[in-house]
Amino acid sequence: MTVDTNLYAFFSPDTVAVIGASATPGKVGHTIVSNMIEAGFKGKLFPVNPKGGEIQGLPVITDIADLPHGLDLGVISVPPQYVIPAIEALGERGAKSAIVITAGFKEAGKDGYLLEQEIIAMSEKYGIAILGPNCLGMMNSAHGVNASFAAGHPTPGSIAFFSQSGALCVAILDWALGANIGFSKFISLGNKAVLDEADMLDYLNKDEETKVILGYIENVEHGESFLKAARKTCLNKPVIMIKSGTTAAGAKAASSHTGAIAGSDQSYSAAFHQSGVIRVGDVASLFNLAQAFSSQPLPKGPNLAVVTNSGGPGILTADAADRSRLTMAALSQKTIQRLQKFLPSYAAFYNPVDIIGDADAKRYRQALDVVSEDPMVHSILVLLTPTASVEIEQTAEAVIRMARKCGKPVFACFMGKTRVAPARKLLMDAGIPCYAFPEPAVHSIEAMYSYYLWKNRPKPEYIEVNRDLEQAREVVREHMRRNQPEIVEFEAQQVLKAYGLPTPQTVLARSSDEAVAAAEEIGYPVVLKIASPDISHKSDVGGVKVNLWNATEVMKTFKSITAKAQRMRRDAYIAGCLVQEMAPPGVKEVIIGFKRDEEFGPMLMFGLGGIYVEIMKDISFKLAPLSRQDSFEIVREIKSYMLLKGLKGEKPVNFTALEEIIMVMSRLAIDLPEVWEAEFNPVLVNHERAIVADVRMTLHLKDK
Amino acid sequence: MTVDTNLYAFFSPDTVAVIGASATPGKVGHTIVSNMIEAGFKGKLFPVNPKGGEIQGLPVITDIADLPHGLDLGVISVPPQYVIPAIEALGERGAKSAIVITAGFKEAGKDGYLLEQEIIAMSEKYGIAILGPNCLGMMNSAHGVNASFAAGHPTPGSIAFFSQSGALCVAILDWALGANIGFSKFISLGNKAVLDEADMLDYLNKDEETKVILGYIENVEHGESFLKAARKTCLNKPVIMIKSGTTAAGAKAASSHTGAIAGSDQSYSAAFHQSGVIRVGDVASLFNLAQAFSSQPLPKGPNLAVVTNSGGPGILTADAADRSRLTMAALSQKTIQRLQKFLPSYAAFYNPVDIIGDADAKRYRQALDVVSEDPMVHSILVLLTPTASVEIEQTAEAVIRMARKCGKPVFACFMGKTRVAPARKLLMDAGIPCYAFPEPAVHSIEAMYSYYLWKNRPKPEYIEVNRDLEQAREVVREHMRRNQPEIVEFEAQQVLKAYGLPTPQTVLARSSDEAVAAAEEIGYPVVLKIASPDISHKSDVGGVKVNLWNATEVMKTFKSITAKAQRMRRDAYIAGCLVQEMAPPGVKEVIIGFKRDEEFGPMLMFGLGGIYVEIMKDISFKLAPLSRQDSFEIVREIKSYMLLKGLKGEKPVNFTALEEIIMVMSRLAIDLPEVWEAEFNPVLVNHERAIVADVRMTLHLKDK
Repeated sequence: MTVDTNLYAFFSPDTVAVIGASATPGKVGHTIVSNMIEAGFKGKLFPVNPKGGEIQGLPVITDIADLPHGLDLGVISVPPQYVIPAIEALGERGAKSAIVITAGFKEAGKDGYLLEQEIIAMSEKYGIAILGPNCLGMMNSAHGVNASFAAGHPTPGSIAFFSQSGALCVAILDWALGANIGFSKFISLGNKAVLDEADMLDYLNKDEETKVILGYIENVEHGESFLKAARKTCLNKPVIMIKSGTTAAGAKAASSHTGAIAGSDQSYSAAFHQSGVIRVGDVASLFNLAQAFSSQPLPKGPNLAVVTNSGGPGILTADAADRSRLTMAALSQKTIQRLQKFLPSYAAFYNPVDIIGDADAKRYRQALDVVSEDPMVHSILVLLTPTASVEIEQTAEAVIRMARKCGKPVFACFMGKTRVAPARKLLMDAGIPCYAFPEPAVHSIEAMYSYYLWKNRPKPEYIEVNRDLEQAREVVREHMRRNQPEIVEFEAQQVLKAYGLPTPQTVLARSSDEAVAAAEEIGYPVVLKIASPDISHKSDVGGVKVNLWNATEVMKTFKSITAKAQRMRRDAYIAGCLVQEMAPPGVKEVIIGFKRDEEFGPMLMFGLGGIYVEIMKDISFKLAPLSRQDSFEIVREIKSYMLLKGLKGEKPVNFTALEEIIMVMSRLAIDLPEVWEAEFNPVLVNHERAIVADVRMTLHLKDK
Repeated sequence: MTVDTNLYAFFSPDTVAVIGASATPGKVGHTIVSNMIEAGFKGKLFPVNPKGGEIQGLPVITDIADLPHGLDLGVISVPPQYVIPAIEALGERGAKSAIVITAGFKEAGKDGYLLEQEIIAMSEKYGIAILGPNCLGMMNSAHGVNASFAAGHPTPGSIAFFSQSGALCVAILDWALGANIGFSKFISLGNKAVLDEADMLDYLNKDEETKVILGYIENVEHGESFLKAARKTCLNKPVIMIKSGTTAAGAKAASSHTGAIAGSDQSYSAAFHQSGVIRVGDVASLFNLAQAFSSQPLPKGPNLAVVTNSGGPGILTADAADRSRLTMAALSQKTIQRLQKFLPSYAAFYNPVDIIGDADAKRYRQALDVVSEDPMVHSILVLLTPTASVEIEQTAEAVIRMARKCGKPVFACFMGKTRVAPARKLLMDAGIPCYAFPEPAVHSIEAMYSYYLWKNRPKPEYIEVNRDLEQAREVVREHMRRNQPEIVEFEAQQVLKAYGLPTPQTVLARSSDEAVAAAEEIGYPVVLKIASPDISHKSDVGGVKVNLWNATEVMKTFKSITAKAQRMRRDAYIAGCLVQEMAPPGVKEVIIGFKRDEEFGPMLMFGLGGIYVEIMKDISFKLAPLSRQDSFEIVREIKSYMLLKGLKGEKPVNFTALEEIIMVMSRLAIDLPEVWEAEFNPVLVNHERAIVADVRMTLHLKDK
């Protein structure tokens, strides 16, 4: 939605009305009023209820029409049938924003769905920003706003959280209070009739109180605006999300719950990856990362140094690092020599630096100073086992001192619980994430490094595709007119030509004589393929024969192919055969395709032909439009990439040619929205060139 | 080691001496004495120190020789050079067991290594069970034993823990005290000179106080005894382990730390999997599982039912279940009808059963009763979001009541922290694992179900392999005599014959005339392969030609192959060519091989030939001996298994024939310990038969 200017009034209102305020404790309309008061709201608060009287010391306004003009925020908690009139009345008074707490809309069936449509219409008519319906509300702790019926108030902090699930809001609020995690904004999105994730990202991106943005989503309805907002925001601050309903069972649960049709998980993965959103699998990771990102600088490289007073935990850490994108830093000779000056001879001077069980805080301090100064070290993890000799709190202080000095990200893992508790508090208070075990520490550093890489990647470059768009559209329109959902070979080739895609030399032969003539012109060997607008899977009717070396073979094959196809598909119109040049030896077959995702639009796919795609599921995906870098990546993300690079002295295929075809496919997918899915299969590629040997396109007919 | 009978005295001693006891607080020899006293040791405790006097009220014995005969346990904490004399003196007094706390042995270089060898010798000479050296000690809380210098005493419980890393012992002890987790036994293994994991498993298997066994290991030195003990123990109670040093970086850290050469991670995975050990990746999972296993029965099937008062967390759970081996239970019609009787109409009656945000404890109780009685439900997870209406503690009580009644495993996830804390304590005290978020709950149930499957798998069946062992050994011996590490084709085929393995008809031809004669007898087409004991990679010298259809081709090829090979390998002795029958069309190529693992012995591998093994790394592994079931699994664990099963109407390959060859390979690997690695490559298989077309074996020569 585009009520951006009203979002400041929404989050930081000076005037708030609670429509449906109640004097009865325990009622939602009562809790909202008391939450606003308890949160320390400094502006003007107006309880609204036709009964009048007084609620918690505030005089009740009996009619929305009596509210001051230009109200910042109206919080609506009245039965569903009174919601629309309330919004309308607020609109008439020039209100800037509203929260609809009330449930009973889209999630409750058809009538509710229609009522929700009216909310959207009202928002557009009056230009009001509306959160909900069916939500818990919103909190802005720095501004003293708790416009929700949740129990408890979050402490102020630099983490913003939004969630499609109100239940998760309740649980996380309770959990965060216990874990002493503070929030800048806390938003329950509900049904997202008007305000959605994209609006939140756009606002929170500019919000100075927010350093890290967390989100829980079940589905995205406006993929394009989500992607745009996410891409922009991620360049500025980290966005960490859980997307649930990722699996078949989860999606089933999701759709029975909210009526949301969950998009395919692959497209969400691609969308998150391409827009820089950090995706996590569980709630604990969400907050682990939030704390790390909000308190430490990003590592500027993969090299992790570990300082420890015990071997075992050091090994666990090295294991976890090796399974991640991080590498254990190779310390410089100078660093090692400096360490040798004061560490006992039986210490381990290589990374992990094991300063041995009898280490005290002083030895930690010395080792940390030396290690953190090594220019090849990008991040530091300090492990401590509570041995008898170590001064735990003093070591924590040494870590804090080092972290302030070195400017690199520093993490701690003080193992155990009771004895290390005071030191852990010291560290957390100083903004150094401290874990009970090494693995989550490594995961946090890895996520921060990945984000660093994303943030600093080269600016995406998009190529200009020269094309005859009118010619391509004409083919599509013609099929729409004929109500034919499949564009198959010969006509599909017109589309390829319009995009200037390289194709094998191909002639349509309507008789066996024409086939021989065409073959003589193209040069042997040739391929014969059945040509029929009604047959899209040619090999199912034995409609493809390769390696034909002479006129006799061509003639015989023409007859047998057409006869067999007609026998198997009696109703099909058989135009004849396509005579095609044969691929040179040493050529590899790849598949380049796309499928239109409900939420995010065209999703490109790439894989090697044959069993690699079908059996090994060795496919990579990216959402259109693909930049040069995306195309570079998509061909290298498959496992069978080595086959394209060439084995045992083979030359690599012409990757540039392949990548160009991928970018053209991406352009085509955007140009022709009626094409629902398309596949270049196979694309033949060797070290010299790549050609599109066959193509299939499926249209989305309106009335099917 | 075989000092089994002394382990009872070790864990539950009546008489304990502390050699190196000290009157100075803070010294290890002082801490051990005070730990024993504080743990409430009921037996006789003897501090030993030549200085004499009194330590913590106990008279000090000045000489080990003055200790009573047949002492149960001596705890040794003296400088390294006095350790051996101390053990010897204990041995002379008939002591049954000892703990060597002292460090400075194998981990400290060559002198230490030799000293450690003396410990082993002493243990054998006197039949003393010895823990350590270089360890923290041992605790048996139920018997009032804390023979360690750790800080703090674990509370009694049903979890046994042993660890190769003393530091991890310290950290976990501190953590467990904070998390209120009790232990039956707590053991720091140290250098494992005598007592190792296998001894612990054997003892803890029979220990009635132990329900679950946890372990942290960096390496296993006696693979065979470990496997035997693990297999036996896992049939009786769950064994959950972290194996660190799993990755290249971790292994490097491990070997710089303890001098232990970490075995390949694949062999550990195979060893754990085949012996039923549950492997986890991090310490938090270790204790999550320990709590689940120690308090709930095993699920008897994969079907999980979820009852929740909120949608979002329900979806997260369904997602996690779908990623696991569990399935979301399909509730019976009867169950759904029963639920419909009392749940509001807008509830979700399918699994997850969403009893909606306004649910109270009564509704939870009713829903849980119905769901838990569905016979298709094998485990139950109760989710609760702390909404305003739900009575949290009463719901916890309903869960406890239901769990006691239904006999199925029940888990809870009461989301949040502060408001759910009292309920969570109720649940935990009643033995119902309760989590803050759904994902770890699902992981626990999955691990328990996997263990159930393992425990109830059919008894492994091993086939009898008829073989001429003498003939096979003679080939090996002959190569050992000739100091030739490679057994190549013709002689390797003698080994195949000795094992009755099916091979293609093959004749050695020393001249082109002989080759033609052989080809005529075998029938065209044939294959020609260079025959030379000095050439193991035949294709490197162009030494293999397939598809030879007549006498002229055979003659020409014989000459070209032998000439080229001689040109490329001037020193090689060329015996001629092997003439071999050609594989029929439609045949698949697979590889069956083994490699001898340092710790666990022969590890079999299976994969499809060509790029599947080399590029796609699509290989499965199992340790020998392979049972029928293992062979069944190893061919089905590869991703390209579908290719063997047959695509598009192809017949499946003869799996029985393949599995037999795998079991013969397993037998061969055990029969011939001099063979370091072997490979049948390719094994040709179609729907009728499988034959071993080529073979290579590498010997481990003593002096290489």
